Amino acid sequence: MKAEIIAVGTELLLGDIVNTNAAFLSRELAALGFDLYYQGVVGDNANRLSHAVELALGRSQLVVLCGGLGPTADDLTKETVAEVIGQRLVPDQKAAQLIEQYFLCRNKHKTNNNNKQALVFENGTVLYNDNGTAPGLFCQTETGAVLLLPGPPHELIPMFNDKARPILEGLTGSTIHSKTLHIIGIGESELEVKLGGLPDGQNPTVALYAKTGEIHLRITAKAQSSEQAKALVEQKQKEVESIVGDMIYSDDGKDLAETVVSMLSQKGLTLALSESITGGGVAAAITSVPGASSVFSTGIVSYNDNAKTKLLNVSEDTLSRHTAVSPQTAIQMAEGVRTLSGSYIGASVTGYAGPTGEQVGLVYCAVATAEGTLVEKFDFGNMRSRAYIRELAVKNLLNMIRKTLQNT
Amino acid sequence: MKAEIIAVGTELLLGDIVNTNAAFLSRELAALGFDLYYQGVVGDNANRLSHAVELALGRSQLVVLCGGLGPTADDLTKETVAEVIGQRLVPDQKAAQLIEQYFLCRNKHKTNNNNKQALVFENGTVLYNDNGTAPGLFCQTETGAVLLLPGPPHELIPMFNDKARPILEGLTGSTIHSKTLHIIGIGESELEVKLGGLPDGQNPTVALYAKTGEIHLRITAKAQSSEQAKALVEQKQKEVESIVGDMIYSDDGKDLAETVVSMLSQKGLTLALSESITGGGVAAAITSVPGASSVFSTGIVSYNDNAKTKLLNVSEDTLSRHTAVSPQTAIQMAEGVRTLSGSYIGASVTGYAGPTGEQVGLVYCAVATAEGTLVEKFDFGNMRSRAYIRELAVKNLLNMIRKTLQNT
Repeated sequence: MKAEIIAVGTELLLGDIVNTNAAFLSRELAALGFDLYYQGVVGDNANRLSHAVELALGRSQLVVLCGGLGPTADDLTKETVAEVIGQRLVPDQKAAQLIEQYFLCRNKHKTNNNNKQALVFENGTVLYNDNGTAPGLFCQTETGAVLLLPGPPHELIPMFNDKARPILEGLTGSTIHSKTLHIIGIGESELEVKLGGLPDGQNPTVALYAKTGEIHLRITAKAQSSEQAKALVEQKQKEVESIVGDMIYSDDGKDLAETVVSMLSQKGLTLALSESITGGGVAAAITSVPGASSVFSTGIVSYNDNAKTKLLNVSEDTLSRHTAVSPQTAIQMAEGVRTLSGSYIGASVTGYAGPTGEQVGLVYCAVATAEGTLVEKFDFGNMRSRAYIRELAVKNLLNMIRKTLQNT
Repeated sequence: MKAEIIAVGTELLLGDIVNTNAAFLSRELAALGFDLYYQGVVGDNANRLSHAVELALGRSQLVVLCGGLGPTADDLTKETVAEVIGQRLVPDQKAAQLIEQYFLCRNKHKTNNNNKQALVFENGTVLYNDNGTAPGLFCQTETGAVLLLPGPPHELIPMFNDKARPILEGLTGSTIHSKTLHIIGIGESELEVKLGGLPDGQNPTVALYAKTGEIHLRITAKAQSSEQAKALVEQKQKEVESIVGDMIYSDDGKDLAETVVSMLSQKGLTLALSESITGGGVAAAITSVPGASSVFSTGIVSYNDNAKTKLLNVSEDTLSRHTAVSPQTAIQMAEGVRTLSGSYIGASVTGYAGPTGEQVGLVYCAVATAEGTLVEKFDFGNMRSRAYIRELAVKNLLNMIRKTLQNT
C-alpha cells in the first residue's frame, strides 16, 4: 500500500524549522508496511495545497498531512482537504469540550477562532488531542484515505502512536509490533556480518540504524493479533541477543546515560567522574537524567596538567614520563576522583580531540572500583571532527561503566 | 522568481535521516530573494524523479536538487536530470583530477565507479567540490535553470555558499549580502517591540529567529554591487546596535562559548567553573571550542552538598541556612573554584532543573574576580523541560562571563 506525506507550513518553506515530522512519520509508516515514494512540503496556501493533495491522492492510497490545523486564518489544511475529498465540516461536541477544558486548565483565554478547531469531517474519525487543541482527523476517500495530524511534534508523535497507529493497522489488515535494541561496541558493517542473514528476514524485519557511536536495531513484526506480533518480536530478539550478547545495552528506549543511572540506582552504588578530553560531557550526560543526584556527586574537569596533579593526585612523574594522554594518567585520574569523592566507581577519560596536533582521536578511558582499575585504549581516527571524537569518548566511557556495573 | 527544492534519497523516505538540507537551502534561497512554494523528497528512482523534475520545472524558474550524486548505481540524479533537460553528459578533466587527488590525499582506493562522478552537463557550469568527490552542476534550461548539489551537508553547505550563491545572484540580477547578529538577554516579543518598525523594512530586511535562550537577527540587503549591499547591511546593523546595545554578543557567526573563549584568549585571562544544575554543561560548551585549554583549566561538578563543602569550601552553615540553591551558595561556589584553580574568573551555577520538586526553573549564577563577585537570579519557569532549563542555565552563565569580560 502506497503512502505519501505532505507537511504544511510556510515556516518550513522559509527554512525556519526543520521537517522532523517527515522523518518520524516516514519511519513509522515504513514499519507499518507502507511504501513511501514521496514527501512534500507546501505553504499555507489553499490553491497549492489543494493541487498537492489531489496529486497525492491520485498516486497513493494513504495521504498523511501534518500542520495547518491551528486556530488562525492561515491554518487551512482541514478546510482545503475537506473540499478536495468532498466532506462537509461539522462541529464535534467532544472536541469543543476538550478545547474548553484545555484553556480552563491553563488559565488561558480561549478566543473565538478556537471554535474552528472543533470542526471535523462529517464522515470521518476524530483523533482527540491530549497535548493541544487541534484534533487530528482520519477519513476514507473514494480511492484511499487521508490522515490529518497537528504540526507540533509533541502533539503529533503521541497522537500518531496512540490514536493513528491502530487505524492504520486496520488499513493494512494486520497488527504491527516493534522493538528497538540499542547496541554499542561494534561497527555497523561488523554487526551486519555478525548477524548474517538476519536483516534479510521478511517478518519480523530487522533494520539497523547507525547513530553516533552506537547502533539501533529495530525488530518489526506484523501479525493478525498483537500477541502474535509480540511473540514474533520476542523470538527474533532472543536470536539477536544470542549473537550480539551484552553489546545490547537497552531494549526499552533508554539511552546509555539513562541505562547507567538506572543500574547505579538499582544497585545502590555511586559514581564520580574525572574528564579531560570530554570537558564535562560525561557528567552532563549523567546529570541529564532525572534523579542522577542520588548516584552522582562529583565531577572533575581537569583540562590541564595542574588540575590533574592538584585535584586528582596524578603524579607529576607520570605526566612527564607518559604524558597526559596515557593509560597511566587515565588510571590515576579514575583512582584519584574515586578517593576524592568516596564513590563506589571512579571513572576517567583523557585524549586528543583536535582539530590540530598529533594523535587526534587517541583516547584512554579508565574505571576504578575497590576491585581494581580497568583501562581501555580507543583510536577514533583523525579524520573526524572534534565534536564527534568527544561524543564517541563520552559514549565509550559510559559503556565501560555499564559493563563494570553488569559484573558488580 | 520562483524556486523549488527536490531532495533525492531513499534514506530520507525511510526516515533514516532528517532533511536539514531543505531547511538550509530554503533559508538561503529566501534570503536571495527567491519565492519558494514547494519542497519535495523523492527516492533513488529514475522514473519518479524524472516526473518530479518535470513538474517542478513547469512551475518554478529554479529547481535545486540535492543528493544522488554519489558513485554507486543507485545515485542517478545527474543522469535523470540530464535526460529531462536534454543535456549530454561529458567527462570533465578537472573534476576527474580532483577526484584522483581526493583519494590520493586520503590513502584510499578509487574505484571505477568514481569515474561516473566526473561526468558533467555538456553546456553547464561545474561547481568543484572542496569537501568530497561529487561536483555540483548548474545549467540553464529552456524555461529556467537547475542546480544540482551533493547530499552530505558538509559538502552541500560550503558549495552553496562559495560556488552556487554567485551564480544565483547572477540569476536574480542583484547581489545579496547578509549578516546575523546573535542576541542574548531579551525575549523575542520584547525585542520586536524594542526594534519598533525595523523588521518591516524591505531592503535591507530584518528577520528574527528564536533559538534556545537567544535570538538571531538576520539583516539581508540586495543591491547592484557587493559594496552597496554591504554598506546597506552595515548601516542597518548600526541602527540595530544603537537599540539593542551589548545584548548583541557576536556578528561573525561565533556562538556564545566561542565568543567567551576568544575574549579570554585576547585578554590573556583564565576561567574556572563550578556547576551544580548544569552538571558539566558549561565546561562542555567551553571545551567544545578548539584552543580552550589555554584559557580553561578546571571545572568542578558539585552535584551534592558534600562536594560543595569539600571541594569548593562552601560553608555548611550557608547550605543549611540558605540551601544549595541560593545566591549565597552560588557566590561561595564561584569564589571557591576561583581560589582552588588560581584562575582570573571563577564562575558558578546552581538551581532546580526538575522535573519534580519545588521551585523548578529557579537558578542562580555567580561570577567572581579579584574585583568582587556578581550574582544573578533567573526564573526560567516550571513549565519547561529539564533539558531546556539546563540549556538556559548554561547560556546565561556564559553570558554573565561575557559581560564581565567586556568590562575587564
